[in-house]
Amino acid sequence: MALIVQKFGGTSVANAERIFNVAKIITETYSEGNDVIAVVSAQGDTTDDLIEKAAEINTNASQREMDVLLSAGEQISMSLLAMAIDKMGFPVKSLTGWQAGFLTDSSHTRARIRRINKERIENEIGKRNIVIVAGFQGINRYDDITTLGRGGSDTSAVALAAALHADNCQIYTDVDGVYTADPRVVPKAQKLDEITYDEMLELASLGANVLHNRSVEMAKKYSVPMEVLSSLERKPGTQIKEVIKMEKMLIKGVARDNDVARISIIGVPDTPGVAFKIFSQLAAKKVNVDIILQSIGRDGTKDISFTTSRSHKDTAMDILNGISDNLNAHGVVCDDNISKVSVVGAGMQSNPGVASKMFEALSEAGVNIQMISTSEIKISVLIDLKDSEKALNAIHDAFINED
Amino acid sequence: MALIVQKFGGTSVANAERIFNVAKIITETYSEGNDVIAVVSAQGDTTDDLIEKAAEINTNASQREMDVLLSAGEQISMSLLAMAIDKMGFPVKSLTGWQAGFLTDSSHTRARIRRINKERIENEIGKRNIVIVAGFQGINRYDDITTLGRGGSDTSAVALAAALHADNCQIYTDVDGVYTADPRVVPKAQKLDEITYDEMLELASLGANVLHNRSVEMAKKYSVPMEVLSSLERKPGTQIKEVIKMEKMLIKGVARDNDVARISIIGVPDTPGVAFKIFSQLAAKKVNVDIILQSIGRDGTKDISFTTSRSHKDTAMDILNGISDNLNAHGVVCDDNISKVSVVGAGMQSNPGVASKMFEALSEAGVNIQMISTSEIKISVLIDLKDSEKALNAIHDAFINED
Repeated sequence: MALIVQKFGGTSVANAERIFNVAKIITETYSEGNDVIAVVSAQGDTTDDLIEKAAEINTNASQREMDVLLSAGEQISMSLLAMAIDKMGFPVKSLTGWQAGFLTDSSHTRARIRRINKERIENEIGKRNIVIVAGFQGINRYDDITTLGRGGSDTSAVALAAALHADNCQIYTDVDGVYTADPRVVPKAQKLDEITYDEMLELASLGANVLHNRSVEMAKKYSVPMEVLSSLERKPGTQIKEVIKMEKMLIKGVARDNDVARISIIGVPDTPGVAFKIFSQLAAKKVNVDIILQSIGRDGTKDISFTTSRSHKDTAMDILNGISDNLNAHGVVCDDNISKVSVVGAGMQSNPGVASKMFEALSEAGVNIQMISTSEIKISVLIDLKDSEKALNAIHDAFINED
Repeated sequence: MALIVQKFGGTSVANAERIFNVAKIITETYSEGNDVIAVVSAQGDTTDDLIEKAAEINTNASQREMDVLLSAGEQISMSLLAMAIDKMGFPVKSLTGWQAGFLTDSSHTRARIRRINKERIENEIGKRNIVIVAGFQGINRYDDITTLGRGGSDTSAVALAAALHADNCQIYTDVDGVYTADPRVVPKAQKLDEITYDEMLELASLGANVLHNRSVEMAKKYSVPMEVLSSLERKPGTQIKEVIKMEKMLIKGVARDNDVARISIIGVPDTPGVAFKIFSQLAAKKVNVDIILQSIGRDGTKDISFTTSRSHKDTAMDILNGISDNLNAHGVVCDDNISKVSVVGAGMQSNPGVASKMFEALSEAGVNIQMISTSEIKISVLIDLKDSEKALNAIHDAFINED
C-alpha cells in the first residue's frame, strides 16, 4: 500500500463530466489499496471570472483581498470533487489550504510555503478517507489567506508529497507526459518515459509549459518522485526522478521560449565594475536576467548584452538609459523580435559534438544565430522570431528523429 | 463614537454598482466617527448557482461538503466589498467566518453559533479598520466549515453585535422598514418607527419576511438594539427594541402565512393521554406544530386539530394514520387550502375589544373563520386560502387605517 498525491488542474475539473472523470482516477487508485490525497485547482475559468469581478470594482485591489477572493475558487472545485467521490460510494473529505495545514509567508499572491501542519491530513488518511485539498492556497502567521502564485497547485502537491513522504506525486494534465518538444510545433515530438529533475527544470524554464519550475525545484530538493500524466487516458506518463537509467538518447528535449527581449548596452569602457553597476540596478528593480554575454573588449570598449522577459523590457530599458551617460556608453538597444531555442540533456557537456551538431542543423536550415549560451545540460541560441518554428524542427530532426 | 454592526443581504451586493452603494453607507458611518463591522451575504444568485453546480454532481451531497461549497459565496462578496472600500480610500479588512472567530456546533447546513472568539475583530477595530465579515458561516470544534442555515447572515450580525456590545445592529434590506402589513398585499400598509422584539417575533413567524426569527430571538436575549432599514435610500428605518414609548396605535401589524396545513384527528376517546400520544410522536419526527385546538368532549369523544407547515404535512399524516387505529379514532383529515391571518400588538390581551373588532371585520368581508388562536400579543384566525387577501385588507382597514 502506497501513499499517492495526485494533482488535477483547472481544465480537469472544468465541468461535472470531467469532475467524475477525475473522481474515477482517484477512486481507482484508492481501490488498489493506496491512500490518496488529491490536490485540485479552481475550475476552468473560475479564476479569470473572479479576477474580472475584482477588476470591475478596483483595478488596483489589495493583494490580501485578491487572495481572499481567488482562494474561493478551489473551495468550490474541491467540494464538488468530494461530492462526486461521495456519490461513487467512497469516504472522502475536502480541506481548504488552512484546514490542510499549509502555512506560508506573508507575500500575498506569491506566497512561499513555510511548513505543513500534517495533523489533520494524517488523521483523515488514518481513517482511510480520500482527502481532497485545495491547491494554490494557505494562510500566513496572522491567519490571513495567501495564494502561492503561478504553478501554485503543482507546488502544493509536491509540498504535501514531501511532508508526508508520499511514494509518488502524480501531476495530471491535458497532455500524456513530457515531450522532446512541443508537439504543436514539432509534429515528430516523442514522449519521454523518464527525465531527471534538472532536465525537467531546464525544459520548463525554456517554455515547455508542462510543469512550473517551482514545483520541480521542490521535488528535487526533497527527492519527491513525480509523474506527469494525462487525466483523459489511463496510461503511464513521464516519471521525473533524480537518476534515471542510461539511455541511448542523450538529448531529452528541444524547447523554445518566445517571451524574450534582448537588450544591449554598446561601447561601455572596458574597465572593472561596469557589469556590477548594470546588473545591481537591474536586480534592485527585480528585473530577471537570463543569458548575459559580454563581447571581448576592443578599442577600450565592450558591449554587454542580456536577455529578459518581455514584461521586464521597459523597466530594464529605463534603468539602462538612466545610467548610460554615467557609464560613458555609446547607446542602448533593445530587440524583442527574437526567440530562444534550446536543447536539453544531462551529460551534454561531456559530448562536445552536441553544440556543433546543433549549429550545423541551424545552418542547414538557414537560421542565423544571434547569441549562444551553454550550461551543463543545455545549449541555447537566440534567433530571429520568424525562424523559431523552423529552427525547433531542424534541431529536433537532428537529435531526436535522427535515423 | 459608537460601534455599529451593519448587515447587507445578497441583493445589496449583487453587482459592482450595488457594492459601491453599500461601501458608501459603510464609509459614511465610519466617517461620522463610528467603528463599523459589516456582515455580508453571498452575491445575488451565487448561492443558487453553487447549489445548481452541486446538483449536477450529487443531488444528495453531504452536508459537510455543501457547507464548504456555499461558504465560498460570502468569501467572494466580502473581498469584493473590501476592494470597493479600499478604492474609496478607507482602511479595511475582510474576514471569513473562521477568521472572525465564529465557532458553531456541528450541525452542518443549520449550525448554531456557540461563541465568538473576538480577538481578531477587536484587534482590527482597534487599528480603526473597517471590518467586513462573511455572514452565514463558521467552523465547528474540528475546524470544519459550517453554515447557519436560513436567516444565517442576520444571525451572524446580531451575534457579533451581542458579543462586542455594539451600540446598534443595522439590517439593511430592500424595504425601508417593518410595515403594518405586506405592502404588496395591503396597499395602505404603513411603516413603523419602532416595534418590540416580541411583536417583531410574532410578525416574522406570521410571514412578514423582513427578518428571520432566529436573529430577533438572539437580539431579544442579549438586548441588542436592531434597526431594519433600506440600503437604497438614506432614511431612518424601524427600530426594534425591548420597550418602546406608548403610542396611540395598539396594533402593530397584520400578517398572513399561507404555508399552513391543518390536520384533524376526529373522534378520539375523551380520555387522558391522547394528546400526549399524538404530539410526542410528531415531536419525535421533528414536525413543527403551530396552533393546537381540541374540541370539547361530546359522546365520549373529541377532535384534535393542529396546524403545521406544508412541508411537514405528509410526515404528520403518516404518523397520525399510523396511530389512528390504536387510538380508536374515527379518522384523520388534512386541509392545506388555508391561510393564517393575524393581528399583532403588545397589550392586546387587556383590550378585549380587539378580538371582536377583528371578527367583525372578517364577518363584514364575508370571510368564514375555521380556527381561532390567541396569545398575549396576537390573534390568529385560520381561513380559506381564497379569502386571504380580502381578509388581510379588511383587518388592516379596521385597525390601522381606521379614521
